[in-house]
Amino acid sequence: MPKVKRINHVAIVVGDMDKALSFWRDALGMELHELRDAPAEKSQVAFLPLPGSEVELVMPVTDDSGIAKYLAKRGPGMHHICLEVDDIEGMMEQLKSKGVRLINEEPRTASDGKKYAFIHPDSASGVLVELYQM
Amino acid sequence: MPKVKRINHVAIVVGDMDKALSFWRDALGMELHELRDAPAEKSQVAFLPLPGSEVELVMPVTDDSGIAKYLAKRGPGMHHICLEVDDIEGMMEQLKSKGVRLINEEPRTASDGKKYAFIHPDSASGVLVELYQM
Repeated sequence: MPKVKRINHVAIVVGDMDKALSFWRDALGMELHELRDAPAEKSQVAFLPLPGSEVELVMPVTDDSGIAKYLAKRGPGMHHICLEVDDIEGMMEQLKSKGVRLINEEPRTASDGKKYAFIHPDSASGVLVELYQM
Repeated sequence: MPKVKRINHVAIVVGDMDKALSFWRDALGMELHELRDAPAEKSQVAFLPLPGSEVELVMPVTDDSGIAKYLAKRGPGMHHICLEVDDIEGMMEQLKSKGVRLINEEPRTASDGKKYAFIHPDSASGVLVELYQM
């Protein structure tokens, strides 16, 4: 049976990275591990690791991406939760067999080789859920 | 310096607990550790632990609570993220000194003795953040 291993990260969409970092890094004292451009997502992303998981701050840098439209429509806030799984293909088959609606029918492969896929919020209590296999 | 230790849980507000469990428990295969009434929150809460953190599903059982109004206005979805801290009083002082807006000026104490407080989303990238000390 494929298994959810942990919450890999919670992604938060922000409109102003400096303002966001003044809270998450400067006020809460969380470590900013990396701040980098993510051209594939047309975003800048800040990674703030915690033991066992991570907070990611995502700021769209264009107006035409899905996440930019999300920000324009709903304002800043939690965007998705990423669940790390041990067998992403097996999990996706299991979800399909249960009638769960997937955004990606097959896992996608990131530039670093990790596999990921998104579950549609309609099937997941209104939550955009990312599956991720290290 | 007070410190964020980990993501204690992510809380998801749902309108239909059975439907929510059919995804989180039955389709994803996450363990349902406990399903119980939370009279103080006028809710039913399902606890689905993962190593290091937890997913909590919260279903309002009346129409007049804050979380019921949130559900009526925004629909189901992520409601708050809970960060476990080692020193909640120290963290709240630090946040106040940085100009962060708190919902609770002092920590509240749950029936089990644990201390918690909420940070206002206006100061936290649109995210309702709970602080929690075990």
